Amino acid sequence: MNVTNLACLKCGRWHAPGAPVSVCAAPGCGGLLEVEYDYAGIAGAVDRDALAADSAQTIWRYAPLLPVTAGGPRPPLAVGGTPLYRATRLSTELGIPDLWIKDDGLNPTGSLKDRASAVAVAQALEAGHTTVACASTGNAASSLAGNAASVGLRSVIFVPARAPAGKLTQLLVFGAHVVSVEGSYAEAFGLSEVAIAEHGWYNRNAAINPYLVEGKKTVAYEVAEALGWKAPDWVAVSVGDGCTLAGVYKGFKDLVQLGWLDRMPRLLGVQAEGCAPIYTALKAGRPLVPTAENTLADSIAVGSPRNPDKAMRAIRESHGAMVAVSDADILDSIRLLGRTTGVFGEPAGAAGLAGLRQAYRCGLANPKERAVVLVTGNGLKDIVNGTKAGGGPIRIPPDREALRRALAEAGLD
Amino acid sequence: MNVTNLACLKCGRWHAPGAPVSVCAAPGCGGLLEVEYDYAGIAGAVDRDALAADSAQTIWRYAPLLPVTAGGPRPPLAVGGTPLYRATRLSTELGIPDLWIKDDGLNPTGSLKDRASAVAVAQALEAGHTTVACASTGNAASSLAGNAASVGLRSVIFVPARAPAGKLTQLLVFGAHVVSVEGSYAEAFGLSEVAIAEHGWYNRNAAINPYLVEGKKTVAYEVAEALGWKAPDWVAVSVGDGCTLAGVYKGFKDLVQLGWLDRMPRLLGVQAEGCAPIYTALKAGRPLVPTAENTLADSIAVGSPRNPDKAMRAIRESHGAMVAVSDADILDSIRLLGRTTGVFGEPAGAAGLAGLRQAYRCGLANPKERAVVLVTGNGLKDIVNGTKAGGGPIRIPPDREALRRALAEAGLD
Repeated sequence: MNVTNLACLKCGRWHAPGAPVSVCAAPGCGGLLEVEYDYAGIAGAVDRDALAADSAQTIWRYAPLLPVTAGGPRPPLAVGGTPLYRATRLSTELGIPDLWIKDDGLNPTGSLKDRASAVAVAQALEAGHTTVACASTGNAASSLAGNAASVGLRSVIFVPARAPAGKLTQLLVFGAHVVSVEGSYAEAFGLSEVAIAEHGWYNRNAAINPYLVEGKKTVAYEVAEALGWKAPDWVAVSVGDGCTLAGVYKGFKDLVQLGWLDRMPRLLGVQAEGCAPIYTALKAGRPLVPTAENTLADSIAVGSPRNPDKAMRAIRESHGAMVAVSDADILDSIRLLGRTTGVFGEPAGAAGLAGLRQAYRCGLANPKERAVVLVTGNGLKDIVNGTKAGGGPIRIPPDREALRRALAEAGLD
Repeated sequence: MNVTNLACLKCGRWHAPGAPVSVCAAPGCGGLLEVEYDYAGIAGAVDRDALAADSAQTIWRYAPLLPVTAGGPRPPLAVGGTPLYRATRLSTELGIPDLWIKDDGLNPTGSLKDRASAVAVAQALEAGHTTVACASTGNAASSLAGNAASVGLRSVIFVPARAPAGKLTQLLVFGAHVVSVEGSYAEAFGLSEVAIAEHGWYNRNAAINPYLVEGKKTVAYEVAEALGWKAPDWVAVSVGDGCTLAGVYKGFKDLVQLGWLDRMPRLLGVQAEGCAPIYTALKAGRPLVPTAENTLADSIAVGSPRNPDKAMRAIRESHGAMVAVSDADILDSIRLLGRTTGVFGEPAGAAGLAGLRQAYRCGLANPKERAVVLVTGNGLKDIVNGTKAGGGPIRIPPDREALRRALAEAGLD
C-alpha cells in the first residue's frame, strides 16, 4: 500500500494510514481527512506505458494509487472502465466542438458510486470485516449492497421509511439487510452510526470515510488516460454531498503530482436550483446553510451536504465554477443527451450537461475549450423522471390510411 | 466484408450477400436465411493472438466475422465487452463448482439486444439509410433507438397501445418516433412492415433480418475468448422468439468452423412455463403451436415466435436441451443471482439460471461440468418484478432500543 498518511484538511495534522476510518481526532478539530500517497515511489514503480499495456479495464488497473494492499482481496464486479464518448452530434447541436461524455451509468450497479463501494468492500475484506453498512436510499447503498454480495459480505442499509419501494429493489435483490426507520433521513443516519459503532461494522457513510473519495477519483484517471494524458479544459459533474466532485478533483490532483498530467482541468460543479447549498455558500462567500430539497434529481437532493469543504476546495483550487440549474433544464438535458448520443442518464446524471450549457450561456466557459461531462448514474434508475423528459408517442388506430396520415404529419416520409 | 452468401435453411438455396434483407426468395419457400462467411480466408487473415493484442473491448473486435465492410461506419456506443464472472459463491450454494455468469445487462442500453442493433445500425449506415424501424416494446426497440441516436439515424418504433408508459421511456429519451397502434402487437407489427416497405427503411424486425443473429453471436465469441478458447459444457440462455439462442449457436459454430474452438457447447434453452411454445414443440416432436403469453418475464413472453426453426436447430445440433421454468423459479433466481453475485438481472435475464437449476434437478446436466449462464438484460429494466423478487425491509421506529432488538432478531449482531 502506497498511502503515507491521512492529512486533516482543517488543522493540517497527519494521521497514520490504517487509523480507524473517521474524521480528524485532534482535540476539538473533527476536520475531514485526505489520503496522501508516496507519489515519488509510485512514479518510480509505475508509468503510463505500463498502464497502457495492462488490458484489465476496471479501477484495479490503478491499484498502486488506491488505499488497498497489493495483491489483496478485491470484489470481482467489473467496476470502472466505462466508455468516454466523443459527442459529435451533441457538439454540433450546442456549438461546442470538443465535447465528451463519460457514461458512468454503465458501472455494474448503474452508477459512479460503484467506484467508492468497490474500494470500501476491498478495505473491509482486508481488515477482516464481515459486515458493511451505510445510511442511504440511493446509489451509495445499491453499489455497496452489490459489491458486498459479490464477495459474501453482509450489508446493512439504513433508510427512512418514506423511501419509495422501487429504490429498495436493488438493495433487497442484492440480499442487503434493509433497516427502514420510521423517521427522517437524519434519524436513519443517526441509527446507522450507532449500530456501526456498536458492532464494529465497516462504515461506508461518505465524507466521514476518507477512502471513498479515493474510489471515486478513478473516474478522473480514466478520463485523463482516454484523452492521452492531456487535461480537458472543463469537467462538469453534478454535486450533492460533494464527495463525487471531491473525488474528481483528487484524481486529477494525483495525476498532476505524479507528473502524468500537465495541469488541473477546471471543475464545474452543478447543483439543482431547488437544493443548492454549496452553490449558494460559494457564491456568497459565506458558510454553508442547509436548504430544502426541492428537486427531482434525487441523487443530488442533499440539503445538508457532509462534504462541502472538499467540494468548495475543488472548485477554488481548480479555478472552476459552480452553477445551479432548474429541474426543467435537467429534464431537457436528459432528452438532449439521449437523442444525440444514445446515453440515458438519471436526472443527477444529466444535470452535469445542464450545468455545462448554463456555463456557456453565462460566459463562464468558452465553447472552443474541451469539455467532459460525467454522467454519474443510469437513467434506468429513475424511469419516472425519464418519462417526464421523453415526450409522447404518435397514436393511431390500426389502419393503413391512419398510418400514412400520421407519418406524413410527423414528417416521417 | 467476408460474407460469401446467405443460405436458406429450408431449401438450401444460396443468395448473394447484399441482397435485400429478407427471407428466401425462391418460389414458395420463404425460409429463414443464414449468413455464411469465407472462414478459410478469415482464418488466414486473423488469429486468436491478434485478437488478444487488440485492446478494443467492443463487438467490433470481431469485425472480420460480422456482416459489415472493413473500415465502414459504426455506431460509437460501447456494445459488448461485458464481464464474464466466475460465480464462486453461487457455485458453492448450488453445488456446481464451475459456474460462470455473463452480465450482458451492462450493455449500453441494458441488454444483449444492443449487439444486434449495433450491427443493424452499422448496416443501415453503410447502405445509406436514414431511418431504421421495428415493432417491439422491449429490448430490441430500446437498443435500436439508442444505437440510432448515437449516429443520428431516425428510428421509428411501432408498439401496441397497451405497452406500459415505462417501457416507452428509453425509446422516447433516445428520440425515437414511437407509433402507438390501438390494437394488438400483431397489428403493430403488420403496420411496421407496411411502413418499412413503403418508405424503404432499414428493417430491424428480428428473424426476418438474418443479420441480427450475427450481432448476437458475439456474446458466444466473448465467452469463448474469456475462457481461453475452451468450450464450456453448457451455455444457458432464455428463449423468446428464438433469435438469441440462434445467435449463441451461430457464434460457437463459427468458432468451430474457424478451428478456434474444439467443440460446440451444449445449449440449454429456457422458456417460461406460461409461454413455452418452442419447448413444447421440441418435446413433442411436433410443429410449433402458438400459445398464450402468461409470464412476468416479458422479454421472453412470445407466444408466436418468429425464429423457432433456428432455435430448435441450435438445441438439436448442439445436443442441448430445452426446459421450462415457473415464474416463481424466475423470481427466486433473480434474488439468488443478486445476493450471491451482485448481478441484477431482469426476469428473462435470470431465467437462464432458473433453467440451469432445473436441468440439474432433472439430471439433464452434470453438476461437475462447466456451465455459463447468459444474463440477457438488466434488472433495472423491470423494477416491478425485481421488487417481487426482493423480499422486504426490517421496519423499526427511530429509537436505539428498537434498533437493538431488531438487529438481534435478524441475527445482525
